[in-house]
Amino acid sequence: MKQALEGIKVLDLTRVLAGPYATMVMADMGADVIKIEAPEVGDDSRQFGPYIQNESAYFMSLNRNKRSITLNLKAPKAKELFIEMVKKADVVVENYRPGTMEKLGLGYEELKKINPRIIYAASSGFGHSGPYSKRAAYDAVVQAMGGIMSITGPKGGKPTRVGPSIGDVTAGLFTAIGVLAALNYRNNTGVGQKVDVAMLDCQVAILENAIARYVVTGEAPKPAGNRHSSITPFEPFETSDGEIMIAAGNDALFVKMCEVFGTEEWAQDERFKTNPLRTKHVEELVPLITEVTRTKTTKEWQDLLDKAGVPNGPINTIDKVMEDPQVLARDMIIEVDHPVAGHLKMAGVPIKMSETQGIVRTHAPLLGQHTEEILKELLGMSTEEIDALKKENIF
Amino acid sequence: MKQALEGIKVLDLTRVLAGPYATMVMADMGADVIKIEAPEVGDDSRQFGPYIQNESAYFMSLNRNKRSITLNLKAPKAKELFIEMVKKADVVVENYRPGTMEKLGLGYEELKKINPRIIYAASSGFGHSGPYSKRAAYDAVVQAMGGIMSITGPKGGKPTRVGPSIGDVTAGLFTAIGVLAALNYRNNTGVGQKVDVAMLDCQVAILENAIARYVVTGEAPKPAGNRHSSITPFEPFETSDGEIMIAAGNDALFVKMCEVFGTEEWAQDERFKTNPLRTKHVEELVPLITEVTRTKTTKEWQDLLDKAGVPNGPINTIDKVMEDPQVLARDMIIEVDHPVAGHLKMAGVPIKMSETQGIVRTHAPLLGQHTEEILKELLGMSTEEIDALKKENIF
Repeated sequence: MKQALEGIKVLDLTRVLAGPYATMVMADMGADVIKIEAPEVGDDSRQFGPYIQNESAYFMSLNRNKRSITLNLKAPKAKELFIEMVKKADVVVENYRPGTMEKLGLGYEELKKINPRIIYAASSGFGHSGPYSKRAAYDAVVQAMGGIMSITGPKGGKPTRVGPSIGDVTAGLFTAIGVLAALNYRNNTGVGQKVDVAMLDCQVAILENAIARYVVTGEAPKPAGNRHSSITPFEPFETSDGEIMIAAGNDALFVKMCEVFGTEEWAQDERFKTNPLRTKHVEELVPLITEVTRTKTTKEWQDLLDKAGVPNGPINTIDKVMEDPQVLARDMIIEVDHPVAGHLKMAGVPIKMSETQGIVRTHAPLLGQHTEEILKELLGMSTEEIDALKKENIF
Repeated sequence: MKQALEGIKVLDLTRVLAGPYATMVMADMGADVIKIEAPEVGDDSRQFGPYIQNESAYFMSLNRNKRSITLNLKAPKAKELFIEMVKKADVVVENYRPGTMEKLGLGYEELKKINPRIIYAASSGFGHSGPYSKRAAYDAVVQAMGGIMSITGPKGGKPTRVGPSIGDVTAGLFTAIGVLAALNYRNNTGVGQKVDVAMLDCQVAILENAIARYVVTGEAPKPAGNRHSSITPFEPFETSDGEIMIAAGNDALFVKMCEVFGTEEWAQDERFKTNPLRTKHVEELVPLITEVTRTKTTKEWQDLLDKAGVPNGPINTIDKVMEDPQVLARDMIIEVDHPVAGHLKMAGVPIKMSETQGIVRTHAPLLGQHTEEILKELLGMSTEEIDALKKENIF
């Protein structure tokens, strides 16, 4: 099958999460992502658990569809090879601390002289400008500083970190968007550019309505718990075997929910007739609903509410997510064969495209698995030349 | 300044959040986004609080840089106009429930016949295939079903919804990525396509290492609280006036932290020498650290830890985020003039591009503000023709 980013060559210097997530998205859509790793150790996340046969499941799920070449970028000869590769590439992506590439003599200003068409994407904690630029950040730090923790957590409780590293993941997504937009510009003009994405900036960009609420009310929003602040009922309710999220987003859906419950009188009740009234009397309504929802299992309520068209869902743990019929029907859990680790399940490709569906074509590379292949293919080197370089310990 | 997506014409049928977020990202980078709204009511989120002078701050922050035309797509004449517009457009984006566009006779299969170059992006709760396809979803439902709630929350506590509507926002980001990748393919081949993005799929795609952990251990991960499961110290600590996130990600950073604290002996302590040891003895280490951190303010610790290069940050509430020097230096809080609401602060553009920096050029449109302008410009209609149509109540 054709791929949307076929023919786009990406030199990928990224490690751990934000950068590798960005290049994974591109690789999933067909870009030729060449992961350049330090000899012997490679991407730090190769050492992150959990492991299967000593291979990191974390690394394997983020680096599918990529090829690996090792290069010791501190060695002058390796730098030369990298520069030769830049001449043949479309995109360079890195997520070092700002200044690192410049110290290596491989900053954007240098690479641009070598290839003015190059798109250079840098993902970092705080970005390539501003007073904190040179500081290191981790996901936990930008989640703390960017405000998302302050509005996540139990109502009345403490700020809470979002489970997945959303600070890294959103930076990866915005980086991919920046690269693709720059590609569009280059297609029209022939000119490359630098794309600079900061994890902290991305946290601010995803705050949704929290900024608007603060600007208008002058009060900083707090952790909101699981209840919607202005729609009722819109929260999880206890069932006989767990919980169910019920989101009756308007009056018509509330009537339908009451019909399912056999409590049609609620829809006529002066306290519950309209959404604003229900929100006002939420403390009275929730116990009434819970009394009903406790009488059946989550699955039973789910079937009944689905039939009536009332938005609802179980609060799935990961095992349940991985066997959900919709998730499976959409190929969102796939299985990849790895030469060392065997079969490995991981998340599929969430962008479904009618002409160029992205797929997982290859497992994550072993460290330096494609060094020889890439040097031959990209730089036209011979086996002899490569063997000679091997003795210089540059890869 | 030139813009990366200049010249790309987007017909935007989206409402509320996931779709409008995707088209905002494109509009911020220069795409000409024409928001098509139902006459009189418009985008549902025009009715969402908080308000300034009766204008929704929520709507205004998501719809900057777009133009608005009203069209009653149920009227045959309006459909004709829409079809004429599709002939001139590059992209159509909608986030209706699957099947709605087909019912209107405006599904992808129809539009493709009219313009085979069109890129048709659909963002929905569950996607355009699979057993749940036709069901409605809200952010709370996909956060519940997709697993993110099950791994967010206080340690030992209940699953917790992420504060911002991350289900919508990530779907918006993946939709933008899909459209841009499809544009690249079209630039090479002249062929358009359908891009189908489900909120639920995107939740699975951002679970990060949770799937790997479950696959390897057979145990579904639980809410993890604010502490890192395998790095110590890596969590918020009490200060004299709040909390500070300290992320000493390796042994060298731990030594630096101890130097700042004046507790160099910890680095020699048999319980705390290495990260695995610190993680094993976390219950002993955390009270010791807290005893120290309680002695100064968050700001004081921040300055000291920054100077030593130890990653750290305050847990900012939204008011603090909006006055953070780095956030301001990166133009991540901007002010937009609105003709009714006056000055409004909102999040800036997180993708920093050296050649084509995205900017907020215009405030969110009033309902139908550009109807006449767009009909003239795009379809070459005269004032007389437009006046005649006005009488038919199609916009």
